Amino acid sequence: MTSWADDLRLVDHHCHSVVDRDLTPAGFGTLLTEAPTPGGDPWDSVLGLAVRRECAPVLDLPRHAPARDYLARRRELGTAEATRRLLAASGTEALLVDHGLRSGDLLGLDALAAAADAPVAEVVRLEAVAEDVAGSGVRPDDYADALVERLDRRTGRAVGCKSILAYRHGFDVPPHRPSRAEVTAAARSWWRVGGRLTDPVLLRHALWCGVDRGLPLQLHTGFGDPDEDLHRANPVLLTAFCRATAPLGTPIVLLHCYPYHREAAWLAQVFPHVWFDVGLASTYVGRRATEVLAEALELAPFGKLLYSSDAFGLPELYLVAARAFRRAAAGVLGGWVAEGEATEEDARRVATMIAAGNARRLYRLP
Amino acid sequence: MTSWADDLRLVDHHCHSVVDRDLTPAGFGTLLTEAPTPGGDPWDSVLGLAVRRECAPVLDLPRHAPARDYLARRRELGTAEATRRLLAASGTEALLVDHGLRSGDLLGLDALAAAADAPVAEVVRLEAVAEDVAGSGVRPDDYADALVERLDRRTGRAVGCKSILAYRHGFDVPPHRPSRAEVTAAARSWWRVGGRLTDPVLLRHALWCGVDRGLPLQLHTGFGDPDEDLHRANPVLLTAFCRATAPLGTPIVLLHCYPYHREAAWLAQVFPHVWFDVGLASTYVGRRATEVLAEALELAPFGKLLYSSDAFGLPELYLVAARAFRRAAAGVLGGWVAEGEATEEDARRVATMIAAGNARRLYRLP
Amino acid sequence: MTSWADDLRLVDHHCHSVVDRDLTPAGFGTLLTEAPTPGGDPWDSVLGLAVRRECAPVLDLPRHAPARDYLARRRELGTAEATRRLLAASGTEALLVDHGLRSGDLLGLDALAAAADAPVAEVVRLEAVAEDVAGSGVRPDDYADALVERLDRRTGRAVGCKSILAYRHGFDVPPHRPSRAEVTAAARSWWRVGGRLTDPVLLRHALWCGVDRGLPLQLHTGFGDPDEDLHRANPVLLTAFCRATAPLGTPIVLLHCYPYHREAAWLAQVFPHVWFDVGLASTYVGRRATEVLAEALELAPFGKLLYSSDAFGLPELYLVAARAFRRAAAGVLGGWVAEGEATEEDARRVATMIAAGNARRLYRLP
Repeated sequence: MTSWADDLRLVDHHCHSVVDRDLTPAGFGTLLTEAPTPGGDPWDSVLGLAVRRECAPVLDLPRHAPARDYLARRRELGTAEATRRLLAASGTEALLVDHGLRSGDLLGLDALAAAADAPVAEVVRLEAVAEDVAGSGVRPDDYADALVERLDRRTGRAVGCKSILAYRHGFDVPPHRPSRAEVTAAARSWWRVGGRLTDPVLLRHALWCGVDRGLPLQLHTGFGDPDEDLHRANPVLLTAFCRATAPLGTPIVLLHCYPYHREAAWLAQVFPHVWFDVGLASTYVGRRATEVLAEALELAPFGKLLYSSDAFGLPELYLVAARAFRRAAAGVLGGWVAEGEATEEDARRVATMIAAGNARRLYRLP
Repeated sequence: MTSWADDLRLVDHHCHSVVDRDLTPAGFGTLLTEAPTPGGDPWDSVLGLAVRRECAPVLDLPRHAPARDYLARRRELGTAEATRRLLAASGTEALLVDHGLRSGDLLGLDALAAAADAPVAEVVRLEAVAEDVAGSGVRPDDYADALVERLDRRTGRAVGCKSILAYRHGFDVPPHRPSRAEVTAAARSWWRVGGRLTDPVLLRHALWCGVDRGLPLQLHTGFGDPDEDLHRANPVLLTAFCRATAPLGTPIVLLHCYPYHREAAWLAQVFPHVWFDVGLASTYVGRRATEVLAEALELAPFGKLLYSSDAFGLPELYLVAARAFRRAAAGVLGGWVAEGEATEEDARRVATMIAAGNARRLYRLP
Repeated sequence: MTSWADDLRLVDHHCHSVVDRDLTPAGFGTLLTEAPTPGGDPWDSVLGLAVRRECAPVLDLPRHAPARDYLARRRELGTAEATRRLLAASGTEALLVDHGLRSGDLLGLDALAAAADAPVAEVVRLEAVAEDVAGSGVRPDDYADALVERLDRRTGRAVGCKSILAYRHGFDVPPHRPSRAEVTAAARSWWRVGGRLTDPVLLRHALWCGVDRGLPLQLHTGFGDPDEDLHRANPVLLTAFCRATAPLGTPIVLLHCYPYHREAAWLAQVFPHVWFDVGLASTYVGRRATEVLAEALELAPFGKLLYSSDAFGLPELYLVAARAFRRAAAGVLGGWVAEGEATEEDARRVATMIAAGNARRLYRLP
């Protein structure tokens, strides 16, 4: 790896927090896969190899130490010390965190900032706020107004909003804002049946409430856990939504995107207000992160691609993602220089944009 | 190529049998393409190049011998001798064979085992059994019971079942089991019109009869001949079916998958009961089998990927697929070692799992 | 790059013409992206890097000259001289031109031939002819006959027809020819509302009028500007249309295809009358054109892949595409030779087929 990529400071524009307690081997393994129940040894994957390669030395073990040794050493050091070491080794200088998923199991944002020794800003998960509102005793006919008001408060210090429409329904919904009457009717139905927010009208309504905030609006797209139908989470299905939001100025940020990142890159090229990342993939795919970055950069304007880890639960995932990104940047952008495709100055400038500069501008970070 | 990959013994978990007679040049050419009528010289493809490269020396010709020379030498040796040599050179130690397609044109399973000098086990094609039942004089109202009974007999010594729903309709069907009344009504319609099994209710019914057997259930997915609409054969469309079958314990095995193998790998990661292969692609894509394997391993748990050739008709295809797999394993897993991503021990272990171990466990082979 | 690829003479089987006036920096930038309004500096893309790398030396500047210097030098030389130099450097020996898009802003075909010092032949855009007919004072009930008659005249000296169904609607239409009654009813509606041709019945009708001409019928597929829904422009959605046209003899030519070129390659393998290219992608994706070509050749018969630039407006795009193709051919086919996959003779023959021979045969060029 060339040294300039090792020195890149990263803004992780989409991640979650880390588990704050000691994990059993099984509990650790569950966080190495998107499967609720792993079908085999979760270490038998490129992510498992990457943890043994990248993280073992940070815990004073040799590279490629066996999983058993790794887990034993991690227990010996304690979760807090392992977390501190792994986050520090990642070279992340700011974290934008979605804390709307299982937040009770994870470090709070202030504690995460302390553990990472880096500022943390919040990305507000729209569906979590909507469910809070629905559980707050408001009447269904007042739901729409109450959600606007609650979001106004919740996003006061946030840097962005996030939608998980892909998980709760899929992108096969009309692209435009639902009417007030539709929302009220759907809210009445939801009040009757209860449970999680899965009604497509209310999901679209929450999404458009996010659009109205004007902050960058992140959408989960591409692969994740089996709650979703992957093909209905293809970001290209958002083309009409991108067309509908283009005049409004709210940035749309497509998260993860894999394996549809070439389609996402097209959206980022043709719509001035669309950004994207290949996070989560960088975490999971090991040395193939280089290939995924190369595919993403085929059509992506250099100013539209962002770095993220989408790490959840394990501090190992921040480090694996950061190392994978550095290697990918060195491979792809360094490859441009080696083959005379671009000057070294160009390559470094583009790497810095993707690593941090694009996110700083997009989210107006200090 | 590193020597350890040359030494891998293979279990070909999905293939067909070979033509048992001498072929004309045109007849040979037709088996080099998925086109019923080739649009040009079928040797002008990466598969054609691969046959000239890999198979010519086995028939005592120089590498890259012209097609004409190759066909002449093959005729000179005779089909039996060419078949024996090519199968032996493939290093396959067990073949799981779907004999439900044009079986009259192909060697029987015992003869194939003799030619390959390797044990052969059968995978039962559900639609072929259903058509046998429909042609057996049974009344439509008794079809459902008769199919269960026939499958019970037919699968007694089989190692798996197989569905070609992708060819006969596509995966855009409801994921759940059809009701008895629906099946009977559809059977009555089928009895009236006759012909191949193409009714989507009856195809789903046959699929679920396969699920009920408990044996690994293979599904053709991804590319094949133009009977299918390729996009309706995308394995990701089976997500809801995977969800529906997850509690039942029957392994689901996605065949071929190309060019949707990244989506198949996601299914194999998130569902404990899903396996897949990139066979057929390995056969067809030449040296790019390395890239296809690399893509498949981005998300695939190492225990969930299988080797297959999907060879049909030509013994050349078994050898081409086997060589392509060895090169791909050496390239991808050897690449891990070269770049420090994994130890050599890890790489060899994973190669052995994909080559044979995963199939041995999945199909409970001796 | 190996010298044989530098010497390949190219037939560009699908391109447009060039702007005939001096461009402002912003006007130049707009032609470097598929976005109507660029979201950032359009030079910050692999296409921008490629222009600086490939074109700067042709205008007497050092490789990688900054955009500002490049634009200043181009203005100094004048559009005509820059155009002449860039087209000459591309090594294109024939251009097949779709002149149906913004032709008023572009050089006429004779002037283009003079500037390129190469013969130009026309590809007739079906929708442009249909709109001419609708604007000609004909009655809607006579539209169908008038379109046939007009196409008969317009294609008299043309080498092909082209459909932009993907832009105007998407491929989610019935594959068969609409009835006369449907066409007349749709024409009556169009006459009432006016505007561009977007009615799916009339678009299908125009497409089938193209089929009836018997000339190769090009279809825009894959990425382009945001008028289209990319996923509805996936060439694989044309499978049923390919099946419907297979008996008729009219060649179907899938343009661009990216990022669905693996699916297009499958269509080209299984249907004798289907051809395709990865133009536009070659222009846009920089050094990754090598990877895109490699992916296209996984399933494509060598006789079915064509070279094109899809250049529009800027002569730079012809040169960038030509250089990208030469590098890709050297990388992919040269790689075959280096790894013993094919002989050098085979590799050169295949390169020549894709560069020019396939197009010469398909379009019956002199």
